[in-house]
Amino acid sequence: MLGLVVVSASAQQTNAEGAIRGVLEEQQAAWNRGDVKAFMSGYEASEATTFVGAAITHGYKQVLENYHRRYPTKERMGQLTFSGLEVRLVGPECAAVIGKWNLERPVEAGGNVGGIFTLVFRKTASGWKIILDHTS
Amino acid sequence: MLGLVVVSASAQQTNAEGAIRGVLEEQQAAWNRGDVKAFMSGYEASEATTFVGAAITHGYKQVLENYHRRYPTKERMGQLTFSGLEVRLVGPECAAVIGKWNLERPVEAGGNVGGIFTLVFRKTASGWKIILDHTS
Repeated sequence: MLGLVVVSASAQQTNAEGAIRGVLEEQQAAWNRGDVKAFMSGYEASEATTFVGAAITHGYKQVLENYHRRYPTKERMGQLTFSGLEVRLVGPECAAVIGKWNLERPVEAGGNVGGIFTLVFRKTASGWKIILDHTS
Repeated sequence: MLGLVVVSASAQQTNAEGAIRGVLEEQQAAWNRGDVKAFMSGYEASEATTFVGAAITHGYKQVLENYHRRYPTKERMGQLTFSGLEVRLVGPECAAVIGKWNLERPVEAGGNVGGIFTLVFRKTASGWKIILDHTS
């Protein structure tokens, strides 16, 4: 029995990392079909969810509204690519992720933009969810 | 016995938050007396420790070297103030912290600068340590 229930730290890391990379792949796909709401399902639907950009935004709803305001059309949303992802499990319920983001857009839709992000994921009843996003 | 060993989630949050705020107070004091090495003791002394600024830097030693290079003198270091700290415990071993930083410096030492940071802390054998710092 013991062999079945004991999950090693490295197996935990592998499982969590796979799930988290899956969330980010789904986010990328949702963004690229213009579906901000599905993109947002990567975040925890909580008042405590926080986005750090030029300013600090608290609350899932407020973060969603900011995305809608900054990216009102599919053309403004452009084509999103995440790259260079590094996933680090910090205890059983927390993971820190860094990576690069890039938006490819025509000049008339704002042009290409990109940067670096840090995400904090929490293991919730509905899976791994972003609770904090610092994008610069 | 049960009453002695069960620590509620909110007591855990309070204890962790106090310890983490203590680390940041010590960092601020160390910086303001020009002691980068003591400031760095807030970070985990590990190859995995990561600083995200304009670029990504891996490794405690490399992060320390960057601080030395960017802030070679006490005058360039200026007076550091952290404010608006928000500490969120994510499981027993992980905490996410956001806050604002401000450096007060004479114009000839580079002038005032500041921004927002996200820190990921891990509870280690030597206490709560920063394993990831995203500063913008």
